[in-house]
Amino acid sequence: MPHIQLPENAPGILGPMKFSPQTAEPMNALANALLQTDEGLSRGERELIATYVSSQNECVFCQTIHGAVASAYLGDEDWSFVKAVKEDYEQTPLTDKMKALLAIAGSVQKGGKNVTTEQVEAARHEGATDKDIHDTVLIAAAFCMFNRYVDGLATVAPSDPNIYRYRAARITQKGYSAEGEYTPQAT
Amino acid sequence: MPHIQLPENAPGILGPMKFSPQTAEPMNALANALLQTDEGLSRGERELIATYVSSQNECVFCQTIHGAVASAYLGDEDWSFVKAVKEDYEQTPLTDKMKALLAIAGSVQKGGKNVTTEQVEAARHEGATDKDIHDTVLIAAAFCMFNRYVDGLATVAPSDPNIYRYRAARITQKGYSAEGEYTPQAT
Repeated sequence: MPHIQLPENAPGILGPMKFSPQTAEPMNALANALLQTDEGLSRGERELIATYVSSQNECVFCQTIHGAVASAYLGDEDWSFVKAVKEDYEQTPLTDKMKALLAIAGSVQKGGKNVTTEQVEAARHEGATDKDIHDTVLIAAAFCMFNRYVDGLATVAPSDPNIYRYRAARITQKGYSAEGEYTPQAT
Repeated sequence: MPHIQLPENAPGILGPMKFSPQTAEPMNALANALLQTDEGLSRGERELIATYVSSQNECVFCQTIHGAVASAYLGDEDWSFVKAVKEDYEQTPLTDKMKALLAIAGSVQKGGKNVTTEQVEAARHEGATDKDIHDTVLIAAAFCMFNRYVDGLATVAPSDPNIYRYRAARITQKGYSAEGEYTPQAT
């Protein structure tokens, strides 16, 4: 049960976002600016970073919805690739550049000061630009916020994967919004 | 030295914000929505929560600038009260409600799942509303983002307290913005 009274039929982050629309608006604007672009990193790569950090933070809701969005972009229909990235990305066919960026994201998750010059140099060696490194750090940092918002209020994460699949399809079409519905019935 | 090439004369978070104005805008909008209001918690109380979380995350830049803003609101001219809150808020003359909310913020800093029903009930017992609890969780979560953005890119924190005092006075007058200058000469 959530720690505060939240609107009905609004799972995960949608509950607190509907409770507080004045903060939901800039949070969704930030998610769109960070995730809904292919400038440098692709949308799929950005969602993978978000999913990985959410997984490290053990946030079930965020790792499932962003994992579903990443899978939608990457053609990963059975979610097996995203699952493998969460479990041990070094063993996946991800590019060396993405592996180096995920290492940076993993350090940010533990705390900003954990990012090392060596990690940044390794990413640069694999072709990462200043913008790629910036975006990786900020995506990882932002999900340390989103994950804590979702779990700090003890919101409820649906267990039905189809709810996430449906929502993910809408996010890929329309971007992030506090108004997004999670079930076909609700539209 | 920062991990990426950042604009000159833009200390702390201003460097990455000037590097990436498209993400700075919603981040500043979120800071203004969360911190520049006295609805429920006062501006001074909100900045104290931000300062405490930044201190727990050992982010020098954020704890100093938000500590300076909190001190400006609270008439804490020599910063001694904010220093005491960071060191051991239980021993300060803060209200029991604020102490209960800082305990929640401290749990969010460690990870969202650390917030307990007992902590939330204790805050409610001292008069905290759902909005106070929501805002405390989101301020704490948001500073886990801001702190990681600042330190994950290894930005530089000025050592001169007057730089923070000057900037804090401008924030109390005009709110948060990526365009804010830190020194009188720069205006």
